[in-house]
Amino acid sequence: MEMFCFGIDIGGTTVKMGLFRQCGELLRKWEIPTRTQNHGQAILTDIRDSVQAVMKEEGLAAEQVAGIGMGVPGPVTQDGTVLGCVNLGWGQFQVEQALQELTGLPVCAGNDANVAALGEQWKGAGSDYKNLVMVTLGTGVGGGIIIDGRIVAGPKGAAGEIGHMPMFTDEARACSCGNTGCLEQSASATGLVSHARRMLEQQDTPSKLRDIPQFTAKDVCDCAGQGDAVALAALDLATRTLGTAMAYIGCVLNPEAFLIGGGMSRAGELIFSRVKKVYDELVFPGCKGTPILPAKLGNDAGIYGAARMVLQRGEH
Amino acid sequence: MEMFCFGIDIGGTTVKMGLFRQCGELLRKWEIPTRTQNHGQAILTDIRDSVQAVMKEEGLAAEQVAGIGMGVPGPVTQDGTVLGCVNLGWGQFQVEQALQELTGLPVCAGNDANVAALGEQWKGAGSDYKNLVMVTLGTGVGGGIIIDGRIVAGPKGAAGEIGHMPMFTDEARACSCGNTGCLEQSASATGLVSHARRMLEQQDTPSKLRDIPQFTAKDVCDCAGQGDAVALAALDLATRTLGTAMAYIGCVLNPEAFLIGGGMSRAGELIFSRVKKVYDELVFPGCKGTPILPAKLGNDAGIYGAARMVLQRGEH
Repeated sequence: MEMFCFGIDIGGTTVKMGLFRQCGELLRKWEIPTRTQNHGQAILTDIRDSVQAVMKEEGLAAEQVAGIGMGVPGPVTQDGTVLGCVNLGWGQFQVEQALQELTGLPVCAGNDANVAALGEQWKGAGSDYKNLVMVTLGTGVGGGIIIDGRIVAGPKGAAGEIGHMPMFTDEARACSCGNTGCLEQSASATGLVSHARRMLEQQDTPSKLRDIPQFTAKDVCDCAGQGDAVALAALDLATRTLGTAMAYIGCVLNPEAFLIGGGMSRAGELIFSRVKKVYDELVFPGCKGTPILPAKLGNDAGIYGAARMVLQRGEH
Repeated sequence: MEMFCFGIDIGGTTVKMGLFRQCGELLRKWEIPTRTQNHGQAILTDIRDSVQAVMKEEGLAAEQVAGIGMGVPGPVTQDGTVLGCVNLGWGQFQVEQALQELTGLPVCAGNDANVAALGEQWKGAGSDYKNLVMVTLGTGVGGGIIIDGRIVAGPKGAAGEIGHMPMFTDEARACSCGNTGCLEQSASATGLVSHARRMLEQQDTPSKLRDIPQFTAKDVCDCAGQGDAVALAALDLATRTLGTAMAYIGCVLNPEAFLIGGGMSRAGELIFSRVKKVYDELVFPGCKGTPILPAKLGNDAGIYGAARMVLQRGEH
């Protein structure tokens, strides 16, 4: 009997959903809104309704569905307990069990960044590798660690929190996590903008950025691409922090590859060449030359990874 | 039929060997000298002779021996290729295959620090955990990463090289690996002594260390235990570097526990309390409070881990 599964990626605004064949073929994908009111109580029932509607439309019986994989925006322990998702209004609860009871299907949940890394490893830029580290550069810095083709979640669901590696002792502002000097304060889109802003304040160097009142990370990258000195200096600083953190990770895990995804990764070689240079300069000699590749699946990485995760559980 | 295996830990001076039951009971252990002359050509034949002699003495047939596990002092790739062991005179070769051909038994090889970590996870301080990181503080700093009860080796055998995490940009001396500013330049016994020496040169602070011409890391720890200000400052610096590196590792892997072994770990709470304080101060909040425990097996960790490794291969 041919088997299918669902891959679901719950975000703060929409829930992305996909129906997959066991081989990894994406048959259809769609989205539903994330209803976060009332502590996000409706989210799982909305997912159930949508899953059941699609099963009906596709003529799928429960025994043809291997299960539902699900990425959520917060820490998930290895036994499937969400420790809280601020963006969804969720506190701590056993999310796998909850959706399993609603649907009667096996459920497997993981942190969204970890799940995206698994998706890229399965069907994206990492499909040649079983051991990789994915870095997502957006407003924050996310990470996912894949060892032997599986997510490393950590007992408190905090593995892959590379955005919170403590890179600076001289940072005054607090990070969203409560610490100060985290990687994401320097290497995220937000970090890049704040580097550029501070440099513009502290220097008289001419810069096109001075003409853009509320410039974004994309503006900084665009200006850097055109040779703007301040934008280049800001980019050098952000990428040096990232390359250094990746060198730490290299010494610890010696991954076969690093993948970089997220909005900022679209700046391409401007970012990749700098990060590679710093990584190769600092990492243990035996780890030099690790491929550092752009992620491929974009916003679909989460649904692919979620599908893969629930299929893997069945393999045990 | 009851099964047995050999666990072997090849060092630069002696080869430690153990005969184990499959359950992990160590039946006997012994050592042979490591003959490093002629590019260490005799090492594997000496091991074969010793294994065969013990099998004969114990009346063990080949089919009762699950295999030979072996830790070697250098990088080993996941497919069992040694990339070179300076201390043994070895270059690059397929060490598993070589010993397998000599003995007719299944062989599994790994880096000695990784193998020691597996030994502690199996029968030592880490037996309650499946995911842990072991740090060995000796003249250098070694490391081993265990995920889901197995060694993470890395495609180039360089996983667990935490001693070479690039912690300082202001270090002038080169590390043995060729880089500068590595963790082991600060947190090893050698690093501790060099911190103290530099502080004694730069300051007039009275210190008992001034009366010990060639003081060792143990002297520094002993003096620190007696409240010696310079020794304490050196210890603070070494343990801050180590705690910071462990905080990086915590953010990446969120291990269930850290183990610290090696000669310097005998200084006990003097070291552990400082490392814990720095770790909890810097790590991602979700990882705070990770147990940081002294290793238990001492010099036997390697033979235990080697035995475990070859038994695990059989489980596949």
